[in-house]
Formats: sequence, C-alpha cells, structure tokens
Amino acid sequence: MIIDVHGHYTTAPPQLQAFRDAQLAGERTTMAPVSDDELRASVENNQLRVLRERGGDVMIFSPKASGMEHHVPDPGVATDWARASNDLVHRVVGLYPQTFAAVAQLPQTPEGNIDAVVHEVRRTVGELGFVGVNLNPDPSGTWTGLPLTDPSWFPVYEVLEELDAPAMIHVSTACNPNFHTLGAHYLNADTSVFVQLLMSDVFDRFPHLRLVIPHGGGAVPYHWGRFRGLAMRNGWQDPADLFRNVFFDTAVYHQPGIDLLLKVVPASNVLFASEMLGAVRGADPETGIEWDDTLRYLDGATLDDVERARVLHDNALLVYPGLAGRFA
Amino acid sequence: MIIDVHGHYTTAPPQLQAFRDAQLAGERTTMAPVSDDELRASVENNQLRVLRERGGDVMIFSPKASGMEHHVPDPGVATDWARASNDLVHRVVGLYPQTFAAVAQLPQTPEGNIDAVVHEVRRTVGELGFVGVNLNPDPSGTWTGLPLTDPSWFPVYEVLEELDAPAMIHVSTACNPNFHTLGAHYLNADTSVFVQLLMSDVFDRFPHLRLVIPHGGGAVPYHWGRFRGLAMRNGWQDPADLFRNVFFDTAVYHQPGIDLLLKVVPASNVLFASEMLGAVRGADPETGIEWDDTLRYLDGATLDDVERARVLHDNALLVYPGLAGRFA
Repeated sequence: MIIDVHGHYTTAPPQLQAFRDAQLAGERTTMAPVSDDELRASVENNQLRVLRERGGDVMIFSPKASGMEHHVPDPGVATDWARASNDLVHRVVGLYPQTFAAVAQLPQTPEGNIDAVVHEVRRTVGELGFVGVNLNPDPSGTWTGLPLTDPSWFPVYEVLEELDAPAMIHVSTACNPNFHTLGAHYLNADTSVFVQLLMSDVFDRFPHLRLVIPHGGGAVPYHWGRFRGLAMRNGWQDPADLFRNVFFDTAVYHQPGIDLLLKVVPASNVLFASEMLGAVRGADPETGIEWDDTLRYLDGATLDDVERARVLHDNALLVYPGLAGRFA
Repeated sequence: MIIDVHGHYTTAPPQLQAFRDAQLAGERTTMAPVSDDELRASVENNQLRVLRERGGDVMIFSPKASGMEHHVPDPGVATDWARASNDLVHRVVGLYPQTFAAVAQLPQTPEGNIDAVVHEVRRTVGELGFVGVNLNPDPSGTWTGLPLTDPSWFPVYEVLEELDAPAMIHVSTACNPNFHTLGAHYLNADTSVFVQLLMSDVFDRFPHLRLVIPHGGGAVPYHWGRFRGLAMRNGWQDPADLFRNVFFDTAVYHQPGIDLLLKVVPASNVLFASEMLGAVRGADPETGIEWDDTLRYLDGATLDDVERARVLHDNALLVYPGLAGRFA
C-alpha cells in the first residue's frame, strides 16, 4: 500500500471559489450546492486518476494551500472559509473512503484566531475523522507574526497532542513581491521553521507533537552540515534530535534532490508525497517523467525493502494514526 | 592557484565596532586609528592562517555581512559605515596583495540610497581596485523593499556593467524573529532572488551583469526540478538560461550537499568558496573536517581536471576580471 501524504484539492468545483469571492466582497452568503457527481468529476479526472495511474493507493487530501489566505484578518471570514473548504474535502473522503483521508485547513488569521483554530481542530480531527491539519507558520503572508515556538501557538500543539494528530507546516499565498509563493515562499517557510524548532524546546514541552515539513524540508537537507555546525557553535540541540518529532516529505521534483534527501535524512523520517495537483504540472521533456511523479524518483533511489516500506507507508501510519483504522 | 571567492572580515580590530557603536548612538565621530600591526594580527591568526593551512592561495575578502546592517535608515550613517568598513578591507589587501582581493560593502538603506551606492561602487571598484561588491537584496532586513528586478535597482547594474565587476547577492542581519540570520535568512534570500531573476528580463537588459548567489544557491540546486517545472508551467525562461549570468558558490558544509551542487549546476557556474570565518566554525566530530573546509568536499567530489580547475580558479578569473591583473 502506497500512501501519498501531500495532496491538495486544487480542483474543487467552482462553487467553492465563488463562495470565497462573495465572502471577500463582504457578502453574507453560503456556498451554492455541490452535487456528489460534481465532486466525483473534480477528482476522478485529476488527483484520483493520477494517483491510480502512478500506482498509489491512498492520498492524504487537504484544501488548496495557496487558497487558505490566512492574511485576511476577519476571524469570522477565516472560520467560515476553513469550514467550507474542510467540509468539501470531507465529502470527497466520504465518496472515496478507501482512497482519501482528510487533512484540515485551519481558520488562522494574522492575529491568530487561536480559539477558533482549536475548535476547528476538534471539529475536523476529533469529530469528522480528519487525520491531521495544515498549520500555517506565517498567517500574515508577510511574516509579521511570531515564530512557531512562541507560546501563543501552544494551544494548537496541546490539542494536536491530545488528539494524537500531526500538523503539516504549510504556508499559503505570499503577500510580499519578493517571494514567489510556490517558488520561494513555500521553501523559505520550510527552512525557517526548521531553524525555529532547532533553537527551541518545543518538543520538550510537547514530546508527542509530530510536525511534517513538506517540500523535502526546504533547503534543510542540502545544508545539513550548516545546521549541524550552527547548532554546535550556538549550543542548540543536534538537528538529528528533531527526528523524534519532525518528518520531511518527498515533494522534491528531480532524482538528485530525492537522492540527497534519502542520503541525509533517515528513512524513518521521510514520507512519500507528490503535492499533486500542486506547484508543478506536466512532464520533464528530458526524461518524460511528470515533475511531481515522485514515486519514479523513489524507484530510482537506493533504498532497501525496509526503508522503502517506511517511506511509502509505514511512516505515514505512525505519523498519522488516524489512518490506521481504515488503512492499516 | 586556488581562489576562495567568499571570505568575510569578521575579525576586524575592535576600533571598527566601536566606531559603529558610536555611530548608532548618534555621535559624530571617526574611527580610532588602527595600526598595520593590528590589521596583520587580525587576519594572520584567522582567515590568512586558515586559508594557507587548507592550501588556498587567494581570498576575495569583504566586510562582515551580518554587520552591514542596511536596515539603519540614515543615508549618511550608511555611507560612513560602508566607507569605514571598505577602507579597512582595502588596507588589508594592501598588506597582503598576493593573497587578498577586496569586495565592497554598499551604503544601502531601506529607501535605497542608490546615488551613494553607485558612488561607493565607483570609489571602491573604479578607483581602489576592488573586484566586486556585495549587494543586499533586502536592505530593510524585513523584506519591505522591492525585488532586485525592479527598475529602482538598475543604476547599480549599470555601473557594475560599466566597470565589468560582479555582485555577490548577500543579505545582512534579519530584522524578523522568524528568520535566524545565518540559518534561515541567508538561504531564503538566495532562493528568493533566484526566483526573482527567473521571472524577469533583467539579463536581457543587462547582458553583461554577473551575479554570484552564495551558500550554494540556497535551496535552488536541491529543488532544481521544481524550478524547471515552475518555469515551464508559467512560461518563464529555462532556469539554465540564468547560467549565462548567475553563479553559485560552494559554501555548503557537507559532502552530500557539494555532490548535489556539482551534479545539478555546470562546473562553469560553481565558484569555490568557504564563507570563512563565517556562519559555522569548528569541525564535524564525525569526520574531523572543519565545517567550512569546503575544499575537502571538493576533493571528495567527482570532478575531472578541467571541471576542478574551473571551480577552483578559472571561473573566478572570468567572473571577477579585476583579479586578472594580479592573479592571472
């Protein structure tokens, strides 16, 4: 069984974006009805087809990351938007319970909106069976908030520990022209959060908290020596200590990158992921391989059977215990 | 001949920092005298010793990057600080003309201070024989300025083209608690600037401009497939097209990182660099190799003689023509 831990519902029926547009226009509205057939069509020709064609079995599925737009300051808007987005993902999971498992968008705002965030974690993970959440370390989109290690974030970690669910660290749209959202902002966030964690005692406080850093950990594996050297010079913990709680996914879109990831990071801390349909679409004209067909790069990598099993499913079942009831 | 293109004067005599402190305290002051013996002592036990011990011959030497502090808004303060810092580096070069070549700090401010920047380029490169400059893509330290592709930066590129000198893209201290300066901000800047350039026509406008992106290009080589895929999807130029004008250094502190860099980036675009004495100091207890002894990683990499010659000196002489008079 092959579990892709990082898929986004980038193909939702247009009613979702219409609702969002109305919301942002200040209208008090609800989403127009979406039929089950529309939901089926939205994934059967997209994520579901691609997953099956490539030999995948299960996809952990969350609302479109760049669409979370946590920079919009109104807490009510954020809460309604997260609920609508999550409810739609939940319905997709209900239609394909053998294929999809849900991860929630949180109603974050630049000011935090933490009570509503905790409430949505309880509603989605505690009540609806979501297996995790996406936590945005930069709800402002301009990095005007506090690091993930600030105590203001602790209520989120408390509820995640209580419910035994992980968070993927995932920013949304950048609101700064220096940072292309998919090309720079996503990777910068991955790197920045890793250093925040490295300098902190968050995992002493929350020893059961599990965080997945996507996009292969940003720049971290490539600069692993830099982080080890900085940690020793500054008296921080050893970067490898974070592997009790931190996991990287395989959303790295070429063979040399995947090879580096697997060389530097233990197989126990790498989770198979494609991020599809996400940042890149289409195939490399030089190889014919679709950029985000990361299973092909794993096939081309040096992994023994135990390591391969860990990356493709064992780790996912450990990190996302909510999967176990349905997919063990 | 082995040329290290990325060394910083992090060991300047204390008069320099005392001057800076007085400046920031609002005093109208000049730097206390520094003797040649003090300058010699400051490098002979540091950069010069380490360079020689490791078998290097030449170091391109610039003021301490984190100390540039372009976020201080006063243009006069920025100009005086850059001049003082550059003049000290210039004196070191004068004492060791067979070993050091100078790269200038620019008097950038969050508002630009572009006339003074151009003036300092002319003074250092045009008059004093500096071989390049460090250009900060984020003088604010909070990324509140415009991307390097905005026309407001063009006067800098014009003078660099005119003087046939390159710029290393190098941020200074981060003024945002989310970004550790050496661990995250430096790497994020490298990645962000690469994407800015990828989306732009800067090199159509300035075909002779040469930019060096340090720290192995941030996250770029690790995510090379992502950038190729994004470029194709968005109709940007091919990332490899940037190799006419963009070069990466080897300030990557472990063997797998250097191996990836050399696998992904043509040897014609990689410049040997240590960044010492910089972000990391000391040795890896597992290998005994000093983190920033990047020559050891190059020795361990798969490079033929031509490639090795390019990385260790040929490329440096092409990118920094100012070296040629003394070190050809």
